[in-house]
Amino acid sequence: MSSVRRAPPFLSQVPLPEAQERWFAALEAAGAFTPGSPTAPAGAAVETVPVAEARDRVLAAAVTARFSSPSYHACAMDGYAVAAAATHGASETSPVRLEVGENAHYVDTGDALPPGCDAVIMIEDVQDLADGGLEIRAAAAPWQHVRPVGEDIAAGEMLLPAAWRLRGPDLAVLAAAGIAEVQVRRRPLVIVIPTGDEIVPLAALAGAAPRPGQIVESNSLLVAAVAAECGAITETTPVVPDEPVRIAAAVAAALERADAVVLIAGSSAGSGDFAASVLGGLGRVVVHGVATRPGKPVILAVCGGKPVLGLPGYPVSAYLALDNFLVPLLARLLGLPAVAHEELEATLARRMPSPAGVREYLRVKLGRVAGRYVAAPLNRGAGVLTSLVRADGLVQIPEDREGYEAGQRVTARLLRPRAEIDQTVVHIGSHDLAVDVLADLFRRRYPGSSLSSANAGSLAGLQAIGRGEAHLAGTHLLDETTGEFNASYVRRMLPGRRVALVGLVSRQQGLLVPKGNPLGLRGVADLARPGVRYINRQRGAGTRVLLDYLLRRAGIDPADVDGYRREVYTHLAVAAEVAAGGADAGLGIQAAAAAVGLDFVPVAAERYEFAVPAESYADPLVARLLALVADPEFAAAVAALDGYDASPAGEVRWIAPAEDDEGAEEVTR
Amino acid sequence: MSSVRRAPPFLSQVPLPEAQERWFAALEAAGAFTPGSPTAPAGAAVETVPVAEARDRVLAAAVTARFSSPSYHACAMDGYAVAAAATHGASETSPVRLEVGENAHYVDTGDALPPGCDAVIMIEDVQDLADGGLEIRAAAAPWQHVRPVGEDIAAGEMLLPAAWRLRGPDLAVLAAAGIAEVQVRRRPLVIVIPTGDEIVPLAALAGAAPRPGQIVESNSLLVAAVAAECGAITETTPVVPDEPVRIAAAVAAALERADAVVLIAGSSAGSGDFAASVLGGLGRVVVHGVATRPGKPVILAVCGGKPVLGLPGYPVSAYLALDNFLVPLLARLLGLPAVAHEELEATLARRMPSPAGVREYLRVKLGRVAGRYVAAPLNRGAGVLTSLVRADGLVQIPEDREGYEAGQRVTARLLRPRAEIDQTVVHIGSHDLAVDVLADLFRRRYPGSSLSSANAGSLAGLQAIGRGEAHLAGTHLLDETTGEFNASYVRRMLPGRRVALVGLVSRQQGLLVPKGNPLGLRGVADLARPGVRYINRQRGAGTRVLLDYLLRRAGIDPADVDGYRREVYTHLAVAAEVAAGGADAGLGIQAAAAAVGLDFVPVAAERYEFAVPAESYADPLVARLLALVADPEFAAAVAALDGYDASPAGEVRWIAPAEDDEGAEEVTR
Repeated sequence: MSSVRRAPPFLSQVPLPEAQERWFAALEAAGAFTPGSPTAPAGAAVETVPVAEARDRVLAAAVTARFSSPSYHACAMDGYAVAAAATHGASETSPVRLEVGENAHYVDTGDALPPGCDAVIMIEDVQDLADGGLEIRAAAAPWQHVRPVGEDIAAGEMLLPAAWRLRGPDLAVLAAAGIAEVQVRRRPLVIVIPTGDEIVPLAALAGAAPRPGQIVESNSLLVAAVAAECGAITETTPVVPDEPVRIAAAVAAALERADAVVLIAGSSAGSGDFAASVLGGLGRVVVHGVATRPGKPVILAVCGGKPVLGLPGYPVSAYLALDNFLVPLLARLLGLPAVAHEELEATLARRMPSPAGVREYLRVKLGRVAGRYVAAPLNRGAGVLTSLVRADGLVQIPEDREGYEAGQRVTARLLRPRAEIDQTVVHIGSHDLAVDVLADLFRRRYPGSSLSSANAGSLAGLQAIGRGEAHLAGTHLLDETTGEFNASYVRRMLPGRRVALVGLVSRQQGLLVPKGNPLGLRGVADLARPGVRYINRQRGAGTRVLLDYLLRRAGIDPADVDGYRREVYTHLAVAAEVAAGGADAGLGIQAAAAAVGLDFVPVAAERYEFAVPAESYADPLVARLLALVADPEFAAAVAALDGYDASPAGEVRWIAPAEDDEGAEEVTR
Repeated sequence: MSSVRRAPPFLSQVPLPEAQERWFAALEAAGAFTPGSPTAPAGAAVETVPVAEARDRVLAAAVTARFSSPSYHACAMDGYAVAAAATHGASETSPVRLEVGENAHYVDTGDALPPGCDAVIMIEDVQDLADGGLEIRAAAAPWQHVRPVGEDIAAGEMLLPAAWRLRGPDLAVLAAAGIAEVQVRRRPLVIVIPTGDEIVPLAALAGAAPRPGQIVESNSLLVAAVAAECGAITETTPVVPDEPVRIAAAVAAALERADAVVLIAGSSAGSGDFAASVLGGLGRVVVHGVATRPGKPVILAVCGGKPVLGLPGYPVSAYLALDNFLVPLLARLLGLPAVAHEELEATLARRMPSPAGVREYLRVKLGRVAGRYVAAPLNRGAGVLTSLVRADGLVQIPEDREGYEAGQRVTARLLRPRAEIDQTVVHIGSHDLAVDVLADLFRRRYPGSSLSSANAGSLAGLQAIGRGEAHLAGTHLLDETTGEFNASYVRRMLPGRRVALVGLVSRQQGLLVPKGNPLGLRGVADLARPGVRYINRQRGAGTRVLLDYLLRRAGIDPADVDGYRREVYTHLAVAAEVAAGGADAGLGIQAAAAAVGLDFVPVAAERYEFAVPAESYADPLVARLLALVADPEFAAAVAALDGYDASPAGEVRWIAPAEDDEGAEEVTR
């Protein structure tokens, strides 16, 4: 870390489809799979498995029925088997008499048709006579209520084609046709090699927190899960340090057994990135750098005739590279079609500029608000894996566009079933722990329903309501002139709208300070003291509005607060920053201080409410959620949080449009 | 089987949603799951598993982050870490000099920000000076290229809610947040009990064909696959004979360990159906009989506080009962929402009458023909499991409708991804083995593409083309006046359409007779001989047209042919019937005779072609299929079939509309 370094070579920017095509062509040339004949790939041989264990496996060859089903003429009803000719002429007026055991034979459903019979009469259509005989009042048609041989399956018939992924009915059909075992593609083995001096396995920490510079190994779990969904199996090697010789040895060892190797991190072109040179030494790097964002530093290589994928270390980049390259690779090895995705048309909630020449993937929350789907982009950072966890879909900005405007119609590829999205209440606004409590309760009480929260701050939440992007907005905005919360902001920002303010909690805001309050901070006035480093919330956050109000009241210029311009987006991010020693104080809620063991200096109580436009308030899904706010379980859970008071929970104030301003605000409970 | 039996009691016909509600209410009352609190179900306790093994498991409780991620201020670029204040004023005209190791520290991406630094300058933005110093031409903003503590995950934050099914990104986030193990719902255990004197395990046959009256046990595979998809595990007991005491003992033993029991067959109300009385004795039968078709004889019971599902033996009925009752039950036990299904709007191809008061499920083939989805119903028989294998979707006819007319817009629930359906060539028409060969080749050459065939006969195929329901129709229709195949039928049935006739094969038709031809049949003229039992093809089949032509030419009245009115739908069904001894002869192709070891008496050669309307011919997907007809691999595979000649393969004749009748037919190759 002491000498001057060279600027790294730029990565190439190969467009996505071309990158895949080049890799596959190189793999074909190397014999990894034969062009046009995916039935005989080098990398995915065939194995024989019992039908009972073959679910989700892929047939290596077409299967032909051994038996017919039924394999005999089967009675399809409980009743009497007869020769249809013996019933000729039977009618209401001239019944025909049959003798049990002679020309009528009792049969249960599934019995073989007795010799000489060619029809079954349902038991309901037979009259018992006193002398033990039977009487029928309608003739039987030949072959009525009989399932002839081969009705379902004819012996010799091709039952299932090659490259067919077996589901439940397929397995049952195979068994019925006399097939006990099937030839299936062997599951491809993917060996995953995590590398990096900074990477530690979670187990190695033995419960301790990572030290600065340490990163917990987690990307291999992503690879394993994606591979498993594709029908492959994975093994993960121990973490390999950033030493080219050791990385090369690990890859070479993996290539001896694996059908594909995934090398994690070091895939860029920095001074500590050895993956490309190592793979170049072991074989051929076909592509280094793909024109996607995130996900540019990807390596597509062929080593020892096998595919090697070099992944970037940022988890979102890694995920997209897996999706774009590992998923189609495994499909190809198994002879399956590329995976099909469900899609949805939605309206983009915000303007999203994006450089031309690159395909950008946005992670979006999707919600059905007022009859249309809205896609709200999440954090774009390649390192923000939680954005992928929270995402309902992926939206692509194509290479030939410099981004999208707000309101653009986009196609979202779904990461969650559409029906779940339809059962999602969309919340954009301020973050509060009570919202997490409510979300958990909602999910438990109504499986399938969920509350999705984008923590954008109070003002941004009200703006989202104005644009029809959210069902409700959590808000705690102090009106400095009235000293009241929220109502005047709603009136100003949502003019002409009828909006309910639904109370959730009253909560303490205060300074989050290190344990023991070493700088002895007593209030906002102390933030301008020299040597006090502050961590702020983003513009538009209720907590920021509160800070500005308190600073003004104390006669302090924000420019005198060291760190005023450092912004984070949640209470817990403020707490984490103080706990990590990066700041001496931040304004936030007491529960956040308690969560990470900080001390708390109270400065103000505030009212946190949901702003709910009337049309959302009338939505049955939203109504179900809001009813839970008045539920004792919610109140009890909230009251247990430090600095929280649940007494406003369930209180409803209506803000009416300005034209009937009188009686504009009414409180119901 | 000798005495007179009573007519069975009728089953009830409980409407579907009500049946499910009644069962669930009874289960709630019995404590199988607690109402409104699915987190603590009696039947699905909690277990702790390593995160690496938790894919697809369901969280039993919300999970909170232990660590922040990053857990330190992390450099987000390769470059130099600096105090932003030290770069103040740097510009193109007045660069600022930095000293490596003093106020500039080389960092790699992921390194911890060195003490005293609050920004990173990308290495590309730094000039190396000859004396070892550095020069920058722009000031660094505080916190640029730094990932602050908690950017992705803040310690104490609720990461994932309860009742969340874990996917790849979730697992990686858990590890990054310091979570090594999670509490998940234990997988419910479903014990499956097959019953029935007629049921034999495939293994017990030791390779032999089932005897008349024997049915291979296959439904348990259906249950196991459906349960596995829902996240449950299954055990299947040995087959229990139809003895109430033994069935009761098997269910009682299963209830000691299982979370749910599935009892297969005997669920109706016939004399051999003991399931309802057995379950009534062990607990309570809540519903016996549901108003669906297929799938009426279903038992929903609660025994020992646990759910017991009595399934009908017909596999399609069993599948629908699993879908309607076991799937939601398992979701409920796991605290998950009901499974969401992808759907599609389609046009129903045929009229489908259906009784009112019953919800009927049609299995349909789906295809995108000329820009719209068409749903072609498959065999409605409850015993025809292959219809479920071949189905692309399920269409419901609701209780308040007496069926649907052809052309009705319906909603199909998809059993296959929409993208696969979009890559399907729809063939309705005559069955030929060459079509199976082509389908297999198509699937192998173009993974993801498929040829779906509905074997409806030649005439029905041309009618389907006329209604826009199929891309192409396999046809072998002899014009008795010209002695030519297909062309005159196309002209008559598709007037005004430009249609290509694409040759596939020339094939021998003949009499399929038992080995050694015991009755010495020499041709169609012998079919009227006394004691000869014939098995016929359905009206509209090319083979039926051929038979009628041959009979007429031989001067034989069809009424003199015993079995003329017994119809089956494929060559192999004819062969199976003769092989089973149910008929002495049937007209069909030599390959079908060979498939089941019959002898073959040739009577005529015929030309099998695809009729392809011009708009389908121009469709790239169809074009890709038709190109394969001229492929040497197709010709070789076809030539290997008994009685086949591949010389017409790939020949194309165009039938033009009548208005320009001159030159209406041209042959290209």
